[in-house]
Amino acid sequence: MKKTAATRHRQLLPCLEASGSHDRTDVPDYKSRPEVTGRGVLLCRAVEMRLPLRSCRIFRRFIPQKQTADAQRRGLSGAGMRLVQFRGSGDRDGVRVGVEQGEGLGVVDLKAFDPSMPSTVRELLQLGDRGLECAQRALASGQFVVDRANVQLLPPILTPEKVVCVGMNYRDHCLEQNAPIPNEPIIFSKFPSAITGPYDDIVLPPESQEVDWEVELAFVIGRRGKNIQEEDALSHVAGFTVANDVSARDWQFRRNGKQWLLSKTFDSFCPLGPALVTADAVKDPHNLGIRCLVNGDTVQSSNTAQMIFKTAALIAWVSKFVTLTPGDVFLTGTPPGVGVFRNPPVFLKKGDVVECQIEQLGSIINKVI
Amino acid sequence: MKKTAATRHRQLLPCLEASGSHDRTDVPDYKSRPEVTGRGVLLCRAVEMRLPLRSCRIFRRFIPQKQTADAQRRGLSGAGMRLVQFRGSGDRDGVRVGVEQGEGLGVVDLKAFDPSMPSTVRELLQLGDRGLECAQRALASGQFVVDRANVQLLPPILTPEKVVCVGMNYRDHCLEQNAPIPNEPIIFSKFPSAITGPYDDIVLPPESQEVDWEVELAFVIGRRGKNIQEEDALSHVAGFTVANDVSARDWQFRRNGKQWLLSKTFDSFCPLGPALVTADAVKDPHNLGIRCLVNGDTVQSSNTAQMIFKTAALIAWVSKFVTLTPGDVFLTGTPPGVGVFRNPPVFLKKGDVVECQIEQLGSIINKVI
Repeated sequence: MKKTAATRHRQLLPCLEASGSHDRTDVPDYKSRPEVTGRGVLLCRAVEMRLPLRSCRIFRRFIPQKQTADAQRRGLSGAGMRLVQFRGSGDRDGVRVGVEQGEGLGVVDLKAFDPSMPSTVRELLQLGDRGLECAQRALASGQFVVDRANVQLLPPILTPEKVVCVGMNYRDHCLEQNAPIPNEPIIFSKFPSAITGPYDDIVLPPESQEVDWEVELAFVIGRRGKNIQEEDALSHVAGFTVANDVSARDWQFRRNGKQWLLSKTFDSFCPLGPALVTADAVKDPHNLGIRCLVNGDTVQSSNTAQMIFKTAALIAWVSKFVTLTPGDVFLTGTPPGVGVFRNPPVFLKKGDVVECQIEQLGSIINKVI
Repeated sequence: MKKTAATRHRQLLPCLEASGSHDRTDVPDYKSRPEVTGRGVLLCRAVEMRLPLRSCRIFRRFIPQKQTADAQRRGLSGAGMRLVQFRGSGDRDGVRVGVEQGEGLGVVDLKAFDPSMPSTVRELLQLGDRGLECAQRALASGQFVVDRANVQLLPPILTPEKVVCVGMNYRDHCLEQNAPIPNEPIIFSKFPSAITGPYDDIVLPPESQEVDWEVELAFVIGRRGKNIQEEDALSHVAGFTVANDVSARDWQFRRNGKQWLLSKTFDSFCPLGPALVTADAVKDPHNLGIRCLVNGDTVQSSNTAQMIFKTAALIAWVSKFVTLTPGDVFLTGTPPGVGVFRNPPVFLKKGDVVECQIEQLGSIINKVI
C-alpha cells in the first residue's frame, strides 16, 4: 500500500489536557461483515457481491487516481481531512476515530496518537477547532496508521442528536413528479437508529413492499448555533458525506397519516459515509456530480448544483426552529431517478446492490438483504 | 421537611464495578430559574407567577397527602421510585441523577452514594436492573439527601435517541375534531433538543402565531428491543412521566408540506417531568386522570383510559420499524381541549402559565415567554 510522505516523527505535545473518558455506552451493535481491503475495496466488494463486470468498471471510474491524490494533498496540507469511524480487526465492540491518509488508504488512529482524544467523531466535533487541529497533527505525524486491510469502516457519525432531512430539494426531481418548486424547504427526519455503515446491508422490512433508493449529499454540523444567519452558516459545517435516504413508498404516501417519519426510519434506512470530508477539503459542495447505481445500472445522475435550498440556506432555515449541535446530520434531498416515479415503478429486492456516489466524497455500497 | 423512615446506614457494597466515567459533553445549557422549594413548590411557583387564587387551589388539590404518602411507601419498599435529574445550587453545569424521597421531598444524590454511578438517567437505564437496584439501595440508605431547597429539577431525560410522538390517540380528541378513530397509530417525532425542564419556560417563537398546549402521558424505554411482542412490551418500560407536546398549529396544518415535525420541535416545545416514575410505582397507567390548566383554568380534562393505542401496543408497533433503546421517550397523544379546536381558537401568549397534571405522576408548570 502506498505510504504518504508525511513527517514521521510524532507530535509530542498532547492535543488536550486529559479530560476524562469519552466512552459511550449507546453505540449500536454492528454485524460482522467482510473486511475492507485497501484501495481495492470497491472492486473487491463488487466481486464479492457477484456484480456484472460493467458495474466493476463503473466503480473503478469513481476512484480515479487524481481524486485520491487530491485528497492526499489536502490531508497532508494540514487543512482538509477525511474523518472516519472504524473498528480494527479483533476489536469487536470499540469505535475509534480515524483520519484517512487518502481515499481508501490507511487510517491514522487518533486515540493511539493521543489517548486523551475522544472515541467518536461527534465528540471530536464537540471539541471544536482543538479537536480538528489535533486530528491534523495526528495525520501529519504519519504514525499510528492502521492498514486498510484491518479496518472496518463504520458510519462517520453514529448517534447524532438529529438527522434532519429535506424533501423535494432538486429542481429536476420536482419536474420528474410534476410537483411545484417549493417556496420553503420541506423538513422531515429519521431517527439516528436508522444510520448504518457505508458498506453495511440495507434490511428489507416485511412491513414494506416498496423500498426505494435516494442518493443524497449529507453535511454534518460542527458548531452549535440557533438563529444562524445565512452568511455565517457555512462556518457551522464540519464537513460533507454521502447518504442514501432509503424510503418505503407505501408508508410514505399511503400510511401513517401521510407523515413521512416511519417510511424513512426503518433500521438500516440511512447508509452513511464512507468518510466525513471536512468542509475545507470540498471545493464547491454545490457543484458535485451525484449518482446512484442499482446492480451497476445508473438510476440517478445529477449535480448538486440542482439543489433548490443549498447548505447555508438549510442551516439558516432549520436553526430558526431548533438549536443545532455538533454531529447533527442533514440529508439535503435527492435528484430524479427514484424507483417509485418510474413507469412501471421499480423497488429494491433482496440481493440488489445500491451504490451512491458523490464526486470528491466517495461511494457507499449497500447490499439489500 | 418531613424525613422518611428509611434505614440510615449506608449500603457498603458498591453497586457497580468502577466502569469508567459517564460524563457527557452533549448536555444542553439550562437557564437559571427560581429554586424549587420542598413540597410547597407548586404553590410557591403559582405565587411567583402571580396566578389567581383559584389556580393555587387547583394546584393544592393535585398534591394530596395520600398520593405523597403512597409514593413514599412505594419508594421505601425498594420497588417503585421517582427518578429525577437535577442540578444542585452552586453547581452550574453538572447534571446529577437523584431519587425523590417522595413527591416534592428531598432528593438522594446517586453519584454521592456511589461514585461509579452515571450522571444521567439515560445512562442509568442503560445499566439495566443493576442500575435501578443500586438506585433503590441509595434511596433505602436515607443518606446523601439534597434538601429540596437546593435542587433545580431538570427534565428526567435530557438527550434520548428518540422522542416518538403519537397523533390522534384519544377517542374524545378524535371526536372533538370530527376525525375518524385511526386504525393504526400515527407516529411523528420531535428532536431531543425540544425537551425542557418541568418548570422551565416555553419560548414563543416569532415564526408562529398559533402555539398550542397538549398534555400527554409520556413513557420511557428501559430495555433495548426490536420487533417486541405486545405481551412482552411492558417489560421494556422504565417508567412514566408528564409531557406537554407544545404545537405550532400554523406550521402543523398549513406549512412544511404538512409534515408535522417543525411544528412540534421548536426549542422548548417539550416540557417533561417532574420525575420518571418507575413502572412498578404506577398502579394502572391507563386509568389516570390527565389535565391541562392555562392560567389556572382547566382546558383539558380526561383519563388515560381514553387512549386508543396503549403503551404495549405502541411499543409493539414502533419496534416493528426501529430498534428501541433505553431512554427513548414516547409521548402518547393528547385528550380534547386543545386551543386550535375551540371556537374561536385560542393560542398561548406571553405571560401565560401552562400546567400539565397526571395522577400519580405529578405536575409540570411552564410559563410562556
